[in-house]
Amino acid sequence: MLRRLAEPVLHHRSPDFAEVFVLAQERLRRVFRTENEVLVFTSSGTGAFESAIVNLLSPGERVVAVSQGEFGERWQAMARAFACEVVPLAYPWGEAPRPQHLRDALAESGAQTAIVVHSETSTGVVCDLEPLLAVCREAGALSVVDAVSSLGAVPLETDVWGADVVVTGSQKALMTPPGLAFAAVSDHAWERSESATLPRFYFDWARHRRAQSKRSTPFTPPTSTVVALVEALGIVLEDGLEAAFARHRALGRACRAGIKAIGLELYSPDDDSAAVLTGALTPEGVDAIELRLALRDRHGITVAGGHGELVSRLFRIGHIGHVTIDDLAEALTAVEVELREAGAVVEVGHAVAAAFEAFGSVAPAG
Amino acid sequence: MLRRLAEPVLHHRSPDFAEVFVLAQERLRRVFRTENEVLVFTSSGTGAFESAIVNLLSPGERVVAVSQGEFGERWQAMARAFACEVVPLAYPWGEAPRPQHLRDALAESGAQTAIVVHSETSTGVVCDLEPLLAVCREAGALSVVDAVSSLGAVPLETDVWGADVVVTGSQKALMTPPGLAFAAVSDHAWERSESATLPRFYFDWARHRRAQSKRSTPFTPPTSTVVALVEALGIVLEDGLEAAFARHRALGRACRAGIKAIGLELYSPDDDSAAVLTGALTPEGVDAIELRLALRDRHGITVAGGHGELVSRLFRIGHIGHVTIDDLAEALTAVEVELREAGAVVEVGHAVAAAFEAFGSVAPAG
Repeated sequence: MLRRLAEPVLHHRSPDFAEVFVLAQERLRRVFRTENEVLVFTSSGTGAFESAIVNLLSPGERVVAVSQGEFGERWQAMARAFACEVVPLAYPWGEAPRPQHLRDALAESGAQTAIVVHSETSTGVVCDLEPLLAVCREAGALSVVDAVSSLGAVPLETDVWGADVVVTGSQKALMTPPGLAFAAVSDHAWERSESATLPRFYFDWARHRRAQSKRSTPFTPPTSTVVALVEALGIVLEDGLEAAFARHRALGRACRAGIKAIGLELYSPDDDSAAVLTGALTPEGVDAIELRLALRDRHGITVAGGHGELVSRLFRIGHIGHVTIDDLAEALTAVEVELREAGAVVEVGHAVAAAFEAFGSVAPAG
Repeated sequence: MLRRLAEPVLHHRSPDFAEVFVLAQERLRRVFRTENEVLVFTSSGTGAFESAIVNLLSPGERVVAVSQGEFGERWQAMARAFACEVVPLAYPWGEAPRPQHLRDALAESGAQTAIVVHSETSTGVVCDLEPLLAVCREAGALSVVDAVSSLGAVPLETDVWGADVVVTGSQKALMTPPGLAFAAVSDHAWERSESATLPRFYFDWARHRRAQSKRSTPFTPPTSTVVALVEALGIVLEDGLEAAFARHRALGRACRAGIKAIGLELYSPDDDSAAVLTGALTPEGVDAIELRLALRDRHGITVAGGHGELVSRLFRIGHIGHVTIDDLAEALTAVEVELREAGAVVEVGHAVAAAFEAFGSVAPAG
């Protein structure tokens, strides 16, 4: 009870919190696989991404922004909102960006900065990041990576691959409640931030670095979320990141096998890159919105929807972070049940059989 | 368990969350005492304050920024970071701003916006806000109020007093974990935001209003903190805001009586305006930093410190939100014990006797 006395004033500056916060930063560096400083923001992933824009760029500056779905388009809109000249490298939703295109875009535009989405949550596409980063280094351009739904789920070697800024949030593969977001910042990016002139205060990197050097944050952080983060990262690191990647690949295989056993068409890629989420199309005549409502109301299962013209056909099952093969099996079965309810020719039980068989080649974690 | 399937994708866009979120907004409006829309940000209070700067101002624009302590100075620094021309109305720390000075500053500068801190946490001064807001209205200037440590603790009538933007955070008198912050925005402020040209994305008001009109947030919110907020606001509103104000006044009286019974000098004002926190000076020869460490290490009690030349003398006891008279009594007794340990002439027990007597005239809440 007495700790509450601290709440109105400076509890987050107490030495108790300082120790937890330092541990959080150490563990974050291990998950990011970096020696760079990882800055901690009280925001969603979008806020941490904004920190990269306002600390690296100046008004009117060119930036190549690769997009292959909703989030890539969001970062283009953000860079434009900050008066940057966006050179879009836009792919149809669902495609993956190609290094040669990025090389050309950087060369033609002379842009010194490139934005890349590692895992595009709207489509399930995880791009092959390493060669894209190599292209940036080769061109002398800074790379800014949206790793919100990829970090901790699929391999991402911040230092070995030479990513300058890697941004993620607490609530996906890091298995922590939402409310914290992170940016790992390379020396090259720190240098650039010294000359970048976009205005910033809440997301100012230098302000965060100064506070972090004193084991603190510049503004009140969600302390209990930091505590939860330390615990979750401890679990991830104890099992090892490779085990996490293997588990996510196996869950992806299981989900794809289940979807195909139901007889549905995959929207996300049919290979191990699709380790974050699986997108599938409902059969002709079954409305995906109705399916999602039925899953929620009759089974307590929330799956994501589609966009644009796919809104009535696409549904997306996420399988990162806490999700287990049993969770997935239950969801797939519920999909079978509700498709049958909706009049589709579906036999209940096929999906779980296929899912467990596909998953079986890899032992479940824990 | 199955809800976790939702985590990687859109759980915060689920209808379940939408209902909670609408309730949070309704209750916030009642606590702000406003019909205005209350925008919800995933950030600390500083982030929500930044939203006011970037949505209301344009580069080079003049803004009168009243300061009487650390937070007032922070908002001046923020406005300067966004290239605004700050007209400072700076008082020595611990003083309260005066309406005539603000009237003069607005008239002389021609500024169309004024920043005012309601409760200055660094000093314990709660200013008399109503006449300051009247001066702004009279001058046709927009008012932006830092109510981070005041809203819910002391009276603040957003609509009746005509405050244009009122900013607060979740973690003080609203008794919710940190991680959410709010801005109530008047029609006049909405109008201004349409012509204000500072760049914004994460803190863009229009983007938040669009999402809130669809019972959602533009970016992933800390859903469990929103749930906690709804519960905490329910408790506050059930007892009534007047009861909360009376309780905070009584806690302030109790704390001041206790501090004086110990024989210490008050730093915060010795009147009912000091309902948020009480600042006190240690006796000559007793280091306030040592006292705070002893309170923490031997009693598990965190109190805040001082600033500048007062760092070795000032300590601040917060008494808003969850704090009870019993918490306060325990803290005051621990102060007595540790002052005696440090060699001061103090009798243990005087503080609680005085505190309970001063508190006694108002029945404890609940």
